[in-house]
Amino acid sequence: MSVDAAIAVFDRNYDAFVEDLGTFLRFQSVSAQSDHAGDMVDCARWISRQLATAGLDAHIVSTDRHPVVLADSGPVPDANAPTLLFYGHYDVQPPGDLKLWESPPFEPTIRNGAIHARGSADDKGQVMTHLTAMRCWRETGMPWPVRVKFLIEGEEEIGSPSLPDVLRKRVDELACDYVVLSDTAKLNAETPSLAYATRGLIYKEIEIEGPRRDLHSGQYGGAVANPGNVLARILAKLQDDSGRITIDGFYDKVRELTDWEKAHLKRAGLTDKQLLAATGCPAPAGEPGYTSAERCTARPTLDVNGLLTGYTGEGAATIIPNRATAKVSMRLVADQDPGTISEAFDQAVRSACPPSVRLSISNHTHCAAYLAPTDSPAMKAAAAALMAAYGKPPVFTREGGTLPILPLFKQILGADSVMLGFSVPDCNLHGPNEFFHVTDFRRGTQCILRFMGLMASSV
Amino acid sequence: MSVDAAIAVFDRNYDAFVEDLGTFLRFQSVSAQSDHAGDMVDCARWISRQLATAGLDAHIVSTDRHPVVLADSGPVPDANAPTLLFYGHYDVQPPGDLKLWESPPFEPTIRNGAIHARGSADDKGQVMTHLTAMRCWRETGMPWPVRVKFLIEGEEEIGSPSLPDVLRKRVDELACDYVVLSDTAKLNAETPSLAYATRGLIYKEIEIEGPRRDLHSGQYGGAVANPGNVLARILAKLQDDSGRITIDGFYDKVRELTDWEKAHLKRAGLTDKQLLAATGCPAPAGEPGYTSAERCTARPTLDVNGLLTGYTGEGAATIIPNRATAKVSMRLVADQDPGTISEAFDQAVRSACPPSVRLSISNHTHCAAYLAPTDSPAMKAAAAALMAAYGKPPVFTREGGTLPILPLFKQILGADSVMLGFSVPDCNLHGPNEFFHVTDFRRGTQCILRFMGLMASSV
Repeated sequence: MSVDAAIAVFDRNYDAFVEDLGTFLRFQSVSAQSDHAGDMVDCARWISRQLATAGLDAHIVSTDRHPVVLADSGPVPDANAPTLLFYGHYDVQPPGDLKLWESPPFEPTIRNGAIHARGSADDKGQVMTHLTAMRCWRETGMPWPVRVKFLIEGEEEIGSPSLPDVLRKRVDELACDYVVLSDTAKLNAETPSLAYATRGLIYKEIEIEGPRRDLHSGQYGGAVANPGNVLARILAKLQDDSGRITIDGFYDKVRELTDWEKAHLKRAGLTDKQLLAATGCPAPAGEPGYTSAERCTARPTLDVNGLLTGYTGEGAATIIPNRATAKVSMRLVADQDPGTISEAFDQAVRSACPPSVRLSISNHTHCAAYLAPTDSPAMKAAAAALMAAYGKPPVFTREGGTLPILPLFKQILGADSVMLGFSVPDCNLHGPNEFFHVTDFRRGTQCILRFMGLMASSV
Repeated sequence: MSVDAAIAVFDRNYDAFVEDLGTFLRFQSVSAQSDHAGDMVDCARWISRQLATAGLDAHIVSTDRHPVVLADSGPVPDANAPTLLFYGHYDVQPPGDLKLWESPPFEPTIRNGAIHARGSADDKGQVMTHLTAMRCWRETGMPWPVRVKFLIEGEEEIGSPSLPDVLRKRVDELACDYVVLSDTAKLNAETPSLAYATRGLIYKEIEIEGPRRDLHSGQYGGAVANPGNVLARILAKLQDDSGRITIDGFYDKVRELTDWEKAHLKRAGLTDKQLLAATGCPAPAGEPGYTSAERCTARPTLDVNGLLTGYTGEGAATIIPNRATAKVSMRLVADQDPGTISEAFDQAVRSACPPSVRLSISNHTHCAAYLAPTDSPAMKAAAAALMAAYGKPPVFTREGGTLPILPLFKQILGADSVMLGFSVPDCNLHGPNEFFHVTDFRRGTQCILRFMGLMASSV
């Protein structure tokens, strides 16, 4: 059987592949720091060579910041086989305080069965499962089971500013049936997961300006609008006491959970007990009629992320503040339209604001939710591949957070994404001593190989 | 006529009195800074000697911080004459940035008809009108027209912490019919004012604690109460959109303005045009049914003085904050009881707070309003004395701010206060280049002498 042959290649060359992973991790590819621009280019070139070694036609595309690596296997013998676009990123977060690292962040070190280095989990170690799977398949001499494309960017940690333009300009070159990415975690060390949804995000900043400078609250208190009081009243009008958001039309397009999803979340989702233990909150709270697991994954939210006005130091100052600001964000779910919700939010804030102050609203983020069908051929193949690699069926999850690239792929390329995550949730992502289990490198590579095989026979 | 004789003494000794004022201003009596403790003692001794020179029995009382100077003329020939307690303070605010002073803050300098020094207006220059009036009267050889007592403290700028105890322990020694103080400003340079009311102050701090640390709003958003959202909803429940405070029973004891007061405020009070010019606000705002002048002097308020929660820097952070805090203060008017209002506030906040967060409320300040009759013998005498000194009748004013000593004198000594203020509103109080017009030193001293004379004949 062809996939087993490719897995056998991995096992025979295990030491060499781990060595290559180490080489990948040694590049100081910190996208946020301009003095690493040269490391970024070197790293992109190294990836391009890896893909060429695997027999793909690889090239590097320049952007305003950091290069993108693209590759393509070209047409494959089976004209009906689907096309998979493997997405990943080679840039990493800055290492932070070096004193907190047990071994240097760019000198990969294996301890307790895990390779420790910046980017080991996010995302180089996981990208390496893709690269290694290609090399293994190539080594068997068999033809590609599916058409394989790659897009590995260097700007994920700084918000992927160049990605939309790259996608839009290369719609044909990047055309695919599915995007495959490994940039998330399993449910826990033993249990794989298959995320099929992420929430969108609209992030606003409200500024209320009253008097031209702070006033003495004795002198003018009662006769002028206080920006702090006004801000509190505006925010309070966006959500009722129960936690339901009262912005006009906010829930109109929200797609309800299916019965299957409700049952699955009930069985496998976050419990109230877990929620309280993890957060330390005295009680759960949220939209009536939904469980905690549903609330933090499948329902939209409105959260105050920051408030600032007036005197906030020790003791008391009797002022009417000149201005008050709030950072407020909303997590969206399918099929809320970010543009419509953004407008409705602004309208609600404007109509709650009296003429005795000046109001301005600015936008930080604007991203749609993503929701994929759980019963597509790719999801079925992914579930089977994870089952084979981990000996346990994956849990289907909705992520409460936001991944802007997923709606981007859907919108521009028309492709759903398959999220095969191999790291563990406590892998010190973005922190010191980030790690990736070597067994997950092996199982991940196996999983990718099996997924490719299953996709070939899925059509 | 006796008062004219005393005024003549002033005019004859003008240079010497201005010299003495300079001596007073040279003491670096900064109560907030412990390295000036010696200057405080020196200054108190100097005042005591001034009072002794005027023929009063003066002594110094120690406190936990800075000494208080007390003095008494003893019984006077007219057994029916009232007793006046002259109150003032010899401590001053720290001078702040010395580079901003045109002449050094403790080297009094006369420029443009005004003596410039820290404390010249607040309150040494005004206390000096009292001391000088006593010396002038004494110099005439006439018996005291009223019984005169003095209480000059050194802790006013740090909140008068020792004063309540001094008053309570010396109720008999300080017994009086009226307290007289000069620690406020005229309406403007030409127009004297007679303040007869101040507002009280309750200052609270609300803290809402949710999760034990900041949470990722994608991970838990929607399933836990957000302290920022909760705080906004609590604050919004304390006041309606019109500006009326909705705390249960808040307005129950509020004494309404008399028709005379309404008419007087309409004629002499702050206009909307003045309010907008002074504050830069786009429109007036406040409790319906009242004018701006009424709102900021005779009506109670609720102002957010500070709000802080979550991320308040540049850009966006998608967090659910661990905690949110608000500083909130209420200006009270007669006859609101601070204890009752404080309880009602706490009750309103508690009942608006859901069980999904932890709430704590702390107290910073707790002070009653003060309201004196405008038609008492002392107020009539004060108005006549100001008319004589300035050639214009005083405007009766309600102060929007808070003077904790006034309700204290009323409560402990049972005495109303007469506020004869001689400085100008723009005298750089607490700032650099504080000044006191020399003509106001002269007119103030005259006014005090006339007031004493009028009080003698008022009974």
